[in-house]
Amino acid sequence: MSYTIGIDFGTLSARAVIVDVLTGEIVSSASADYAHGVLNRELPDGTPIEPESALQAPGDYIQALVGSVKEAVGLSGLMAEEIIGVGIDATSCTILPVDAAGEPMAFHEEYRSQPQAYIKMWKHHGAAPYAEKLTEAAKEACPDLLARFGGNISAESLFPRMWEMKEKAPRLFAEMDEYMEVADWIVSELTGAKARGKRIRGGCAAGYKAYYRPETGFPPKALFNAARLSRKELLEKLPSPVVPVGNAAGRLTREMAFELGLAEGIPVAVGMVDAHASVPACGITSPGELLMIIGTSTCQMLLSEKDLPVPGICGAVPGGILPGYVGYEAGQTSVGDLFAYFVDNYITEDIHRAAKDYAFASGRIGGRSKAADVHAYLSALAEKKAPGENGLIALDWLNGNRSPLCDYALSGMLVGLTQETRPEDIYRALLESTAYGCRTIVENFIRAGLPVNRILASGGISQKNPFAMQLYADILGVPVEVVPLPVGPAHGSAIFGAVAAGSSGGSYDSAEEAIRAMGCKERIVYRPVADHVTIYDGLYRKYQRLCQIFGEEEKDLMHDLRRKI
Amino acid sequence: MSYTIGIDFGTLSARAVIVDVLTGEIVSSASADYAHGVLNRELPDGTPIEPESALQAPGDYIQALVGSVKEAVGLSGLMAEEIIGVGIDATSCTILPVDAAGEPMAFHEEYRSQPQAYIKMWKHHGAAPYAEKLTEAAKEACPDLLARFGGNISAESLFPRMWEMKEKAPRLFAEMDEYMEVADWIVSELTGAKARGKRIRGGCAAGYKAYYRPETGFPPKALFNAARLSRKELLEKLPSPVVPVGNAAGRLTREMAFELGLAEGIPVAVGMVDAHASVPACGITSPGELLMIIGTSTCQMLLSEKDLPVPGICGAVPGGILPGYVGYEAGQTSVGDLFAYFVDNYITEDIHRAAKDYAFASGRIGGRSKAADVHAYLSALAEKKAPGENGLIALDWLNGNRSPLCDYALSGMLVGLTQETRPEDIYRALLESTAYGCRTIVENFIRAGLPVNRILASGGISQKNPFAMQLYADILGVPVEVVPLPVGPAHGSAIFGAVAAGSSGGSYDSAEEAIRAMGCKERIVYRPVADHVTIYDGLYRKYQRLCQIFGEEEKDLMHDLRRKI
Repeated sequence: MSYTIGIDFGTLSARAVIVDVLTGEIVSSASADYAHGVLNRELPDGTPIEPESALQAPGDYIQALVGSVKEAVGLSGLMAEEIIGVGIDATSCTILPVDAAGEPMAFHEEYRSQPQAYIKMWKHHGAAPYAEKLTEAAKEACPDLLARFGGNISAESLFPRMWEMKEKAPRLFAEMDEYMEVADWIVSELTGAKARGKRIRGGCAAGYKAYYRPETGFPPKALFNAARLSRKELLEKLPSPVVPVGNAAGRLTREMAFELGLAEGIPVAVGMVDAHASVPACGITSPGELLMIIGTSTCQMLLSEKDLPVPGICGAVPGGILPGYVGYEAGQTSVGDLFAYFVDNYITEDIHRAAKDYAFASGRIGGRSKAADVHAYLSALAEKKAPGENGLIALDWLNGNRSPLCDYALSGMLVGLTQETRPEDIYRALLESTAYGCRTIVENFIRAGLPVNRILASGGISQKNPFAMQLYADILGVPVEVVPLPVGPAHGSAIFGAVAAGSSGGSYDSAEEAIRAMGCKERIVYRPVADHVTIYDGLYRKYQRLCQIFGEEEKDLMHDLRRKI
Repeated sequence: MSYTIGIDFGTLSARAVIVDVLTGEIVSSASADYAHGVLNRELPDGTPIEPESALQAPGDYIQALVGSVKEAVGLSGLMAEEIIGVGIDATSCTILPVDAAGEPMAFHEEYRSQPQAYIKMWKHHGAAPYAEKLTEAAKEACPDLLARFGGNISAESLFPRMWEMKEKAPRLFAEMDEYMEVADWIVSELTGAKARGKRIRGGCAAGYKAYYRPETGFPPKALFNAARLSRKELLEKLPSPVVPVGNAAGRLTREMAFELGLAEGIPVAVGMVDAHASVPACGITSPGELLMIIGTSTCQMLLSEKDLPVPGICGAVPGGILPGYVGYEAGQTSVGDLFAYFVDNYITEDIHRAAKDYAFASGRIGGRSKAADVHAYLSALAEKKAPGENGLIALDWLNGNRSPLCDYALSGMLVGLTQETRPEDIYRALLESTAYGCRTIVENFIRAGLPVNRILASGGISQKNPFAMQLYADILGVPVEVVPLPVGPAHGSAIFGAVAAGSSGGSYDSAEEAIRAMGCKERIVYRPVADHVTIYDGLYRKYQRLCQIFGEEEKDLMHDLRRKI
């Protein structure tokens, strides 16, 4: 019997999962928190951090790696030799500067109090002004490239963060050897390929977060010139070759094998972005199967053989998700976030009390949070009403609109309020608005020439809220297949670990074979109700009209409001 | 020394006020609740009432009349002879059927269980379908008349209610002698002019609620024909002559004088509508002084010598408020209501706790409700921010828009929501939206050719929320003068009681003289802050654009949502 291990570095913890190469069965799973969590007020040594920052300590990642893997291996009861490959994924762009030996600059005594030397998390927004300048520059210098990435260079992408460091810590910038994604850095730690010239950069994050395309490389000189930057100076800090996903990055060192309780020399796969690792985990191997990961925000991913410009997506990267396909990514900025915003800020004590009673009556107490009870209770109340009965339409833009408008200066809206509007009506309108938003993304892919044959869903909300998923099916007008992934992206990384091992290592030579065997095959299917579809078609047309008004014709209105003028 | 007594019949109680004829000083005031309050589930004998109904028992009004007047007289320490006149006002259209002797039909044994025999309150909505049919009929039959009353025959007006009775209780309809406003009925009780041929109908309610105009009388035959009704049959039930406000209706009978503790034979003024009685109470004697009564909803009143068509107002009645002027009335359906809707439904326990602490710290505890504390606390939090800082605009249409759009199928809207939006931001946006709505009404008057030289405010919110009044001044761009009327419309009725007494009775011959002497002279002036005016001018333009979009160009959107399709 053969197994692989996948390790997912999330926002607050790492999770290691051991998967059976033959069946995809999960043998064991363990997680370990980052000791310092998110640093947003001060560094571990007490140095204050400027607002909008979200940093982490590199040492925490190593500790969580060791902790989660050792525990998973221990729990599995397997012998080290039975585990034949390792895969890694992490949030992205989550990035840190390393020295020529591949050690984090934050480990250097002189940079211990320098925030720029720490890991910038995906949600670090200190680079926002630089992102804006780069977006402006790109509009003139490389509109075609910009179009492939949704018309916007995100503050959550690599170059704005590098520019931020160059401005705020020029000496650190000059002295660092490379600016690395944490997934790539962890891979270098595992494989020992840490020195300049040995390291590699994973094609997934490079593609989506540094706008690297296999045929043309990193963005053109014109972009950087337009921003008064030197491309040469910046690319100096990205020296490692970009290696496509589905390859092995190297082999596990003796030291790390000993530390982790694994066998020396097993292949380590090229690192992935977490969301994208969910695609193989969900058993997706073919174009046209749209996967949406519905959590705080939603990420829609779609494979295609075609390399087409699609307006308003987050990125289109050849080989970025699976070898041989262009991986398209679109997104909604505010989904679980939106529901949480409402539940956290506008729920009376009466509803809290009723929600507790409801949880008790439903036998669902114990371990659930107060907020979870309210979500369940409001969903149950909302479910009793017919489509359209709330008389409301919301625009799900509280964090702006990522796809297809790429406009982060938009904001949320609610129309149809009356004295009879109840909190559950608003809650339902918020759920519906995210489903309408999802439908605009699906239709946008189709309009651009990319077929969408099936819709799959994963992520927290897809499993926690069946009512929401039924709404999605009714609003999308097609079945929504929820993939009940028990461990998320780590499962996908384990699959890439198997691909890295290859048939010579007791596994598979192609990603497709590995996914067929090891991907999750379970589906909970939500089928659209015909009557609901008819009503929601009408409401969706109104939603579209509102998108047109507020997102296009009158977009200055929201822009001005957001700028507080 | 001479005094008059004004009696205001409100929604839940009557209030009697004794006022010094020379100075306008309030000598005493007392109120008495209606014993059965509002009947909306069952009649006093247990007969169930259909939904949308709001009824009252006529006997309660007589009891409250006696109770409030006797107490006010007792508290005043005056001798009965010193009180030289009586004035009456009531909510409207608040209406009941009487027999040929002027007794309420509800007092007849056979109609004791007939809801249609009871008083229909202003907020009774059982006549809504009839109002809709009449509005449709009026659009073809008498568009000019309809235009004078805001393009809408309200369910809160007389003829739909009469039609409702004709349909639901045809025998009662046939047997009743007259359908009377409660103010007129109370006047008939006081003067003893109760029999057919003796009663009179006050010009204020007749004008605003039965669309009576001095030159043409009640609405034309064409209207009723178009609705398949017989004008003759209906007007048979409105036999009494319409007498303009500012006149005496008769003199107090010996029996009622004895009952109330007043002197026999003192003049009783023609009854008024409550809101309109506030105009003299606020000391307004001249055209161009716009008075807004800001409470649950807002009523704007303006006098003018000119009789002009003004789009979207509630009514324009020659002599309807003060003799010699056309009284214009416009309105906003949702004001205090709107703030209460938010505070009642969306306030967390944390805010309740903080509001209580705030009330304690401000020394404002004792006697105030939980909700009042929240209103004060949210206002205080909102006040700390600059205009525009909430980044929100709301449309104040939760109950539809009365003026200037006359469209009750519109609904509320909120735009600009982000994850950073706080409850106090929404609260402020709601306050602002009602001020924007008020500005559209003021500008609508001016555009129609009616000058607005000063803006006065009265009513609960004007006194309870100084922050809201400052917002009104900043948004209207002119000073807002709050008239701190201690007792409201009853004060105005006392003034009309003085006018009814006339100089021969020890008082004044003209309403103008009486108002100058007796009207409230106090003003709390809120002056606009120049910087705020500039910002709010910009935001108001956005509000106007939203009104255009949702109230005109795309009004089907809200209409469809409200119809739940």
